[in-house]
Amino acid sequence: METKIILSEQDMPTQWYNIAADMPGELFPPLGPAGSPLEPAQLESVFPHGIIEQEVSRERWIPIPEEVRSVLFRWRPTPLRRAHALERHLGYGGMIFYKDESVSPAGSHKPNSAVPQAYYNMLEGVKRLTTETGAGQWGSALSFACAQFGLGCRVFMVGVSYDQKPARKTMMELWGGTCVRSPSQETAAGRRAIRDFPGTPGSLGIAISEAVEAAVTSRDVKTRYALGSVLNHVLLHQTIIGLEAKKQCDLAGVTPDVVIGCVGGGSNFAGLAFPFAADKIAGVPMEIIPVEPKACPTMTRGTYTYDYGDTAGLTPLLAMHTLGHRFIPPPIHAGGLRYHGVSPLISHGIDTGLFTPRAHDQVSAYEAAMLWARSEGTLPAPETSHAIAAVVDRVRQAQKEGKCPTILFNYSGHGLMDLAGYEKYLRGDLTPYAPSDHDLSRYMAGMENLPPLARNLP
Amino acid sequence: METKIILSEQDMPTQWYNIAADMPGELFPPLGPAGSPLEPAQLESVFPHGIIEQEVSRERWIPIPEEVRSVLFRWRPTPLRRAHALERHLGYGGMIFYKDESVSPAGSHKPNSAVPQAYYNMLEGVKRLTTETGAGQWGSALSFACAQFGLGCRVFMVGVSYDQKPARKTMMELWGGTCVRSPSQETAAGRRAIRDFPGTPGSLGIAISEAVEAAVTSRDVKTRYALGSVLNHVLLHQTIIGLEAKKQCDLAGVTPDVVIGCVGGGSNFAGLAFPFAADKIAGVPMEIIPVEPKACPTMTRGTYTYDYGDTAGLTPLLAMHTLGHRFIPPPIHAGGLRYHGVSPLISHGIDTGLFTPRAHDQVSAYEAAMLWARSEGTLPAPETSHAIAAVVDRVRQAQKEGKCPTILFNYSGHGLMDLAGYEKYLRGDLTPYAPSDHDLSRYMAGMENLPPLARNLP
Repeated sequence: METKIILSEQDMPTQWYNIAADMPGELFPPLGPAGSPLEPAQLESVFPHGIIEQEVSRERWIPIPEEVRSVLFRWRPTPLRRAHALERHLGYGGMIFYKDESVSPAGSHKPNSAVPQAYYNMLEGVKRLTTETGAGQWGSALSFACAQFGLGCRVFMVGVSYDQKPARKTMMELWGGTCVRSPSQETAAGRRAIRDFPGTPGSLGIAISEAVEAAVTSRDVKTRYALGSVLNHVLLHQTIIGLEAKKQCDLAGVTPDVVIGCVGGGSNFAGLAFPFAADKIAGVPMEIIPVEPKACPTMTRGTYTYDYGDTAGLTPLLAMHTLGHRFIPPPIHAGGLRYHGVSPLISHGIDTGLFTPRAHDQVSAYEAAMLWARSEGTLPAPETSHAIAAVVDRVRQAQKEGKCPTILFNYSGHGLMDLAGYEKYLRGDLTPYAPSDHDLSRYMAGMENLPPLARNLP
Repeated sequence: METKIILSEQDMPTQWYNIAADMPGELFPPLGPAGSPLEPAQLESVFPHGIIEQEVSRERWIPIPEEVRSVLFRWRPTPLRRAHALERHLGYGGMIFYKDESVSPAGSHKPNSAVPQAYYNMLEGVKRLTTETGAGQWGSALSFACAQFGLGCRVFMVGVSYDQKPARKTMMELWGGTCVRSPSQETAAGRRAIRDFPGTPGSLGIAISEAVEAAVTSRDVKTRYALGSVLNHVLLHQTIIGLEAKKQCDLAGVTPDVVIGCVGGGSNFAGLAFPFAADKIAGVPMEIIPVEPKACPTMTRGTYTYDYGDTAGLTPLLAMHTLGHRFIPPPIHAGGLRYHGVSPLISHGIDTGLFTPRAHDQVSAYEAAMLWARSEGTLPAPETSHAIAAVVDRVRQAQKEGKCPTILFNYSGHGLMDLAGYEKYLRGDLTPYAPSDHDLSRYMAGMENLPPLARNLP
């Protein structure tokens, strides 16, 4: 078997896979401000129609426009690689594969959704997009995508990541975007966050509030908002990852027993996992593991309920595993995983037993990254390192059980923009972080006023 | 035609191409300290036998060991890509292709030689390698390669780059290497440089002196030195680039009319160009352009003569285009191009009309990089940006002439580790730098005591 399984451009998928068509049970709809199911038209000041249609669609297959495919061809199909050196290093008798999404211009899977989002906005005459970004992966991906279709791009970057990773700001500017530290003085939501949480490191929830507000209050040019994760349409765009990976597994003659991805809002995990989850829904046995940081344990310690997607409560209410929309995660380096909730589709999958989440702390994630760097030879992003920690953990478990499952994970991005985090790890300056029960319950206070999930009622 | 032309692993070359077998005219031999041709045995304290044999070989084809190929497979064969977006941006009717060497773990072409060098040293029981590095590309590549074969690695990094690019040091340490700012207090050569050139930004010449001295004076474990460019064996290892590119051009049904690469010592240029130069030697018309920075104009303003490869004069004398081994280039961001000389094989090629060098300053290189970032969407290394500046320049020339030559260049590395340089460019803080004739002549003083090239004698 070759070290990497490469598809030709003709083999790149022509349709995205919409798991909403196949999900077991009924999905809880998003709710509007009055607590009743959201009408698609209520989203029109935020998103273009092309995106809203995808958000609410129940069609199984949705075509990828040619203009989008022609940009994706720059780096797609991405390689499926076998981690021979890691297998040897762990003394593992089974096979470990990874889908390498780090090969995109922005260095992660994020352009897979940034490109179609910029495209659909351009089609409808939008001139500028606003967005949030955690570690900067999404903000730089959207800047890149906007440059491809002639749109402006304004990015609100979570304060702690803005300070940790100044190179990401430069990257956005090179592609013509602008980058603002969040919380900022530019928006009411930002000013309120600065007042309510003095000295806050910022959070994705706050940055989303700022970006949504900046879009809907913009008066100079037609401006819309773009989200990098959580929502159905974003996860839909990312399924190109898993669709390619399935073809590549077929070419290699293997079937993964375990599928792993790290989760902030859930886009890279879903992108790889959903096409495989379709087989699991159809009866193929498979273990599908979303991995989160212990510092932000949404899936493993959060509540499944309706909550806002942002701190200021500007978004619709989404049914999700959440720590409460006012939760501000500790300043871990995996800025892309610092989100208080998780995608409704993934939450539903956890609730129905499709996915079995795990959590790892950032120190064990950097340990796994070091092991990876010295065996496989590349430097993973701090987010991706959480997935690698779960792979190593799952291998150890298999070795104890005397089994050799085939493992597939999403190598969602490279860590070349976060070597400062590695430097701290090498110096022993990183803490594992895990909030106490008391911390978590404090942020959940007030959540009882939000509408409960119908199914949770007695 | 697909956007990228991909070879399968079976199509990766099994032999390197040694241009010394085909070079027109006679090559000037390296000279030992006494001024007589160097005996291979005189290199034994510096290099292992496997490397020395390759350095002096006149065999046309040299086999690539399987153990080396199995590491190269992690990222090779690399893609040949068509720069459609740049063509459109320039309104160019011709085709522009680039060989993408940025996809390696260290982010450049450098591992192509680091891996075999670490391998041959390992075979002969060497336990540690020392080396120099400019921008850090070579030092990190060698650290990566040493990690693959269980060797230690000690890197002397040119001071100005060490200060500009701290992430490179972290990268080397992640792979188990150590990195020392050069000039250092660790070696006599370093102490002398600090004394003779107070406040010096350092140079590759000084760092080479330090690394060679550290290898030959090492007493604890068997230590040898590894060079990242200039010498025949390094350029030999890099020919895998051009051999792949030729196969890919054949697959695409194109023949390049113009081949371009940036030059410090010359390894990435030679790697792409030598296999094509073989065709030019055989009579195929072709323009082959090595590109250097105006701040360090070795090929366009230097003298073709015998000179030392390092500042302290520890190396053999090499016949090369040189600015004098005491020349310290201005602190441009393209640290990999700050070398006073150029490979003897390339110098010979220039002298015999095979190669026609050009020079660009760093501001025009960053301008070309910006144009590339906003069209093709990736961020090139400052070194690579010099090649892109030459591509843009050559396209403008072709447009004036009403011609459409097919252009091929080496995208030798990505710029993700040098966003601080881009940041300075965006702020307008970079200067073009070009030494005056007086500056250059000052450094050449004393060179008349070195042996002249026989062919230069009346």
